[in-house]
Amino acid sequence: MPVENFADRLIRAIQSKNAPCVVGLDTSLDLISPEILKEYGVSAASSRKEKCNAIVRYNRMVLDQVADLVPAVKPNSAFYERYGADGIFALEETCEYAKSKGLLTILDVKRGDIGPSSEAYARGLLSEETEEAKLFDSITLSAYLGEDSVEPFVNLCRDYGRGGFVMVKTSNRGSAVIQDLPVGNSTVCEKVAELVSKWSEATAGSSGYGAVGAVVGATWPDHAKKLRALMPKSYLLVPGFGAQGGDIETVKACFNRDKLGAIINSSRGITYPQKTGSSDAMAKQIRVACEKFVADVVAVLK
Amino acid sequence: MPVENFADRLIRAIQSKNAPCVVGLDTSLDLISPEILKEYGVSAASSRKEKCNAIVRYNRMVLDQVADLVPAVKPNSAFYERYGADGIFALEETCEYAKSKGLLTILDVKRGDIGPSSEAYARGLLSEETEEAKLFDSITLSAYLGEDSVEPFVNLCRDYGRGGFVMVKTSNRGSAVIQDLPVGNSTVCEKVAELVSKWSEATAGSSGYGAVGAVVGATWPDHAKKLRALMPKSYLLVPGFGAQGGDIETVKACFNRDKLGAIINSSRGITYPQKTGSSDAMAKQIRVACEKFVADVVAVLK
Repeated sequence: MPVENFADRLIRAIQSKNAPCVVGLDTSLDLISPEILKEYGVSAASSRKEKCNAIVRYNRMVLDQVADLVPAVKPNSAFYERYGADGIFALEETCEYAKSKGLLTILDVKRGDIGPSSEAYARGLLSEETEEAKLFDSITLSAYLGEDSVEPFVNLCRDYGRGGFVMVKTSNRGSAVIQDLPVGNSTVCEKVAELVSKWSEATAGSSGYGAVGAVVGATWPDHAKKLRALMPKSYLLVPGFGAQGGDIETVKACFNRDKLGAIINSSRGITYPQKTGSSDAMAKQIRVACEKFVADVVAVLK
Repeated sequence: MPVENFADRLIRAIQSKNAPCVVGLDTSLDLISPEILKEYGVSAASSRKEKCNAIVRYNRMVLDQVADLVPAVKPNSAFYERYGADGIFALEETCEYAKSKGLLTILDVKRGDIGPSSEAYARGLLSEETEEAKLFDSITLSAYLGEDSVEPFVNLCRDYGRGGFVMVKTSNRGSAVIQDLPVGNSTVCEKVAELVSKWSEATAGSSGYGAVGAVVGATWPDHAKKLRALMPKSYLLVPGFGAQGGDIETVKACFNRDKLGAIINSSRGITYPQKTGSSDAMAKQIRVACEKFVADVVAVLK
């Protein structure tokens, strides 16, 4: 059976929910309300495994609330790797549950290494080599090491119907230090965008969009316009909306005229809507926050 | 008890072995001899856990041979993450065994993310938050996201006596595409080097060297000289010697006049000295290969 291109799958999922939106799962015990930590019976003194079980339980609550509202979720690997091997089990359990709910997964891992190491990363995340490697529909990537560092990922995305989002311009304040360095009439992030555009063309699906796209933060209005133009057939994963201060105009600039080409992420704004409260109260608020997030993004496209 | 600076610990370990050398543990079942795979009872059909047990067993064999010859080992996380959570357990077991043999560990993970995510990565790898976080004396880092993405790591390196090596110029052929882009009279990798130099100064130990240094490939002679001068107080982790074609002159250029400031890595050249043979034969050849590696590097400093 031929595999379906990731961009085609993503677009279908976005259209079925009418929501070009992704919920980030950056789950941290430091931010879960004291009431819920008590309900879960977890504290600073708990074992690594117990802490990870609490994270999975919280994620299941979030997923139960958002699964019918958004097409995809984005766990950031940092919050799972924090607990070593037990954390990776928690990540795998989270993605398994997300997939059982029909969600696409975007694993935010920002990987990139020299050839044989990138190949090993890609096989662990984007192949069918193990059951667990099937849990990740797409991942985020770094291109600092050059084309040969990203190509093993591009190849497996094509072979297995998976996706990648290469960091081009990130949402953080300090991103300018390297990414905005001037290179002739261009900048470093624009040079990375040119590479991404090639990879998108090389992995285009029937929609015309490529399985390999870019990360472009919602916090940089001028960049969004320029980068959108440099990567016309790339899907943009856009973090920084909400908690990080991204605005509506920038989000708008990330979409193409066909109202496709971007998927907007919100993490902490959805998953911790309040600092205190029981799990029942929090679940309700998570749903409200997610509904508002989707409505805000959809309004941009009207 | 005040913690000892990582650079001071590294220099002490290098001097006690008279070997500014590190052995990379990029262990892959694809490269282990058929005879050894048979001895270990592992095949393509084995479970993820069984494959990981075989990797740990191979690593123990390597560590038994090299522990008295070199001060440090460098597992590349890609080859462990390939097997998800079981792979991370294998990584933790490997580092535990390495530390029981008195070796320093350099985990090659190339991490870097926006602030809160970098903080989570740093706590999982360079803190005393869990027993497992103590297994990693130092890690490799990416600076593409800017200063604020690296600072959480720098802070924990200082607080917990750990080290970091920021990718400046990597050994792979394609590294020029982004790293050598011209920025005025400078280049992207030289701009990253300027950041690293600041972080080295901010984390200097009694030796004058900083706990945060740089990755500079052994495959670029002109870069080595320039980058050495731009980062006088940074320790350089130098991969690419051996299998990747790095040469003696480039390695020489990575050291300072005090014969300190660089630690040279060899991975596949040591850990797979032959394509075939039993574990007994391989163990002997691994020792021979490691002795030759150390002698070659020490000869550079004569």
